[in-house]
Amino acid sequence: MTLPPRDIEGACAALTERFGNRLDRSLGSRRTHTHTVTYLAPELPDAVLKAETAEEVAAAVAICARHRMPVIAFGAGSSLEGHLNAPQGGLSIDLAGMDQVVSVSTEDMTVTVQPGITREALNSWLRDTGLFFPIDPGANASIGGMAATRASGTTAVRYGTMKDNVLTVQAAMADGRLIRTAQRAKKTSAGYDLTRLLVGSEGTLGVMTEITLKLYPIPEVIGSGTCTFASVKDACTTVIETIQSAVPMARVELLDEAQVAACNAYSRLGLPVAPTLFVEFHGSPAEVQAQTDTFRAIAEGNGAKGFAWSPDPAQRGKLWQARHDAYWAAAAAAPDKQVFSTDVCVPISRLADCVVETQDDLVQHGLTGPILGHVGDGNFHVLLTLDPARPDEVAAVDAFTARLVARAIAMGGTSTGEHGVGQRKAPYLRKELGDAVDFMAAIKQALDPQNILNPGKYGFA
Amino acid sequence: MTLPPRDIEGACAALTERFGNRLDRSLGSRRTHTHTVTYLAPELPDAVLKAETAEEVAAAVAICARHRMPVIAFGAGSSLEGHLNAPQGGLSIDLAGMDQVVSVSTEDMTVTVQPGITREALNSWLRDTGLFFPIDPGANASIGGMAATRASGTTAVRYGTMKDNVLTVQAAMADGRLIRTAQRAKKTSAGYDLTRLLVGSEGTLGVMTEITLKLYPIPEVIGSGTCTFASVKDACTTVIETIQSAVPMARVELLDEAQVAACNAYSRLGLPVAPTLFVEFHGSPAEVQAQTDTFRAIAEGNGAKGFAWSPDPAQRGKLWQARHDAYWAAAAAAPDKQVFSTDVCVPISRLADCVVETQDDLVQHGLTGPILGHVGDGNFHVLLTLDPARPDEVAAVDAFTARLVARAIAMGGTSTGEHGVGQRKAPYLRKELGDAVDFMAAIKQALDPQNILNPGKYGFA
Repeated sequence: MTLPPRDIEGACAALTERFGNRLDRSLGSRRTHTHTVTYLAPELPDAVLKAETAEEVAAAVAICARHRMPVIAFGAGSSLEGHLNAPQGGLSIDLAGMDQVVSVSTEDMTVTVQPGITREALNSWLRDTGLFFPIDPGANASIGGMAATRASGTTAVRYGTMKDNVLTVQAAMADGRLIRTAQRAKKTSAGYDLTRLLVGSEGTLGVMTEITLKLYPIPEVIGSGTCTFASVKDACTTVIETIQSAVPMARVELLDEAQVAACNAYSRLGLPVAPTLFVEFHGSPAEVQAQTDTFRAIAEGNGAKGFAWSPDPAQRGKLWQARHDAYWAAAAAAPDKQVFSTDVCVPISRLADCVVETQDDLVQHGLTGPILGHVGDGNFHVLLTLDPARPDEVAAVDAFTARLVARAIAMGGTSTGEHGVGQRKAPYLRKELGDAVDFMAAIKQALDPQNILNPGKYGFA
Repeated sequence: MTLPPRDIEGACAALTERFGNRLDRSLGSRRTHTHTVTYLAPELPDAVLKAETAEEVAAAVAICARHRMPVIAFGAGSSLEGHLNAPQGGLSIDLAGMDQVVSVSTEDMTVTVQPGITREALNSWLRDTGLFFPIDPGANASIGGMAATRASGTTAVRYGTMKDNVLTVQAAMADGRLIRTAQRAKKTSAGYDLTRLLVGSEGTLGVMTEITLKLYPIPEVIGSGTCTFASVKDACTTVIETIQSAVPMARVELLDEAQVAACNAYSRLGLPVAPTLFVEFHGSPAEVQAQTDTFRAIAEGNGAKGFAWSPDPAQRGKLWQARHDAYWAAAAAAPDKQVFSTDVCVPISRLADCVVETQDDLVQHGLTGPILGHVGDGNFHVLLTLDPARPDEVAAVDAFTARLVARAIAMGGTSTGEHGVGQRKAPYLRKELGDAVDFMAAIKQALDPQNILNPGKYGFA
């Protein structure tokens, strides 16, 4: 079946008729509505619309559908793998202004938000309720973007990922209809799990216009600390044994030697340069104490040194700030380069092997790449630096990524633990999932037969 | 597009060529391969095949695809809403013999099983590993059936449902190809979430042939007990406040007066006839003690009476056996009738209202229906009794179900929390989800264009 050509100008005319001069075709806006934190070449949309309501999003998608104009949802712009590029042009629907809390239920511990609210703004809003939304990918991403990329981050070891914390979404589908994927009940067996089909679909199946999230009680006490190990293996074994002991770590981050050195330089920490775990516990004072004791005993059994523990929020904040500043630390270590973060995830039993082999690979190829990992999930990041204008450096990073992904897949892992596929991981989807990709393509075709929703991602034409 | 007619005899001939006399067309086998625990009229498959390997399942599906012969996956036969009926005939693929543990990783806390293994057999197998699989729907269901219906049960309040505990599945798709939906890593952002699309799809999108599950450490201590309340509202308030206090209850079950009376009669318990909570805590001795203390204080604040607590496994076993025997207790209370269990799920803030209005409804319509609820999830069951041969009793139960579902949906809830849609809840899917059902139908059409996988469920023709 041949699809009609994309009628960009016809769509823009119809959009202008509906939205007036809010349809923004300026080069400046188009430039700021592609990716911001990757080295991929920008591919600009043809126009930008700052949507204000779900109905406006639906109306814009319906107009685009009539003209086969691509639609790219835009939140905070913190995507890492080229999700926001517009290789076939189209309309960037900017959802940042749709940043309201629609409703909250403290009894149900749920909140319904518009997609543009950021996780930090949400948690500020929630503070007086005694509840919080724990998912923390590092960047102050929008909730819509986090849902669309199935984000997770440092707290996933305890609280899960976006797939575990989105109860239901309202979305504008490719024909411009608004649907709700589920009711607000905590669980359901009613029909296909459209909620989790949309979560992680990167805007290729629908544009989320409202998201209902699970919330959690703000912990009475947060305890945290760091310790160092002689090897990555010892650190990983400590985490495995701690999980097996049913200690619910809230965060557990592995920094390799290169990452510690970069954080020391950037945040003036003076940490010993060795594989280091950052750990955090949530609970009552007694629970946090018991968890800390168990963890410490297990870590010492694996040769851990230099315990630094702190229930003091200021001290803890400083430590974790350093962890969160890892990206900027890597940037500062190579001031004339661009930082590029990529991730894979393997079964935790293979994590130490995967990290060590990756460190060896970096050395062997003369690359600099501090590693930090959400070790409780088997997920780690490599922060590469490159000059995007130098084809040899780009080629070296691409070749490294290919080896990294092949290594992870061979260990039973995935090409991306939390960044998503976008453009950059698209070549690996079939290597990882084989014929399953055919069924993904069939779903895409069924739900977006004109291929207007974020086309060119996942490797789908 | 007109589909060719279903060629049952051609398919059976080809299946016999491939599987010899293992293709069983006897009336006895066909009769035992429909539903077993619902009052719906049986609709028999044309043949039964006891599959022994994933490749056999795939081969059987491929043969059926060539003849448009329906395929119905069969596990333990404990489905409640008519999932196993064959309204258009077809092949029942019996997976009970595929009951092996394929591999286990204690470090990753995962196990890969064939779909026919039951949850009790799995936990017996796991005992020496120190790990267990917590999901407990009551019946000794097969893991494949539990995944296919997105089952949950008493422990979902702490451990989630099958959607939260299936990491990846291997499945035979409608064209006979075997795929894996994901790698074994704990999380992934690679592509659409086919795992959770298949979980809960009731055999309509694929036949699961291998399932990888998350495991958990066997709790050091299990503490449990019961207490009674003056009203359902007081019991529900207790549970809400306990969850808000971050106490990780492992189970929390509400029995209404009628259910307590039935359990007393069946299990000779002598419990006071009042709304009753059964609670269970998992953890270290100190954790379980602290959780028990917090719960007790909250419960007493809501007027709870008659605390009966026991860390003694024998005593706890007796109490929980009574809870698990609720179905048989209801059956014993009406020996000349058939028991029929149905479920809905609402946001927990509405649970008390929903239960009380349902009790009133039962009284008003002269029906007997003990109620028991997974109150931490807002999910509850009504155990109705009827004589399937009496059209007036069937009509009364159907009308009650319609009112129950309408009530739940109006409260933001779902027509089924954990039993699934099957045949009996199909009329309510669109009432609950509106146009979202069109996108479910589009997915079904895309992944099973000949409509051979468990046709006639979900209300899809």
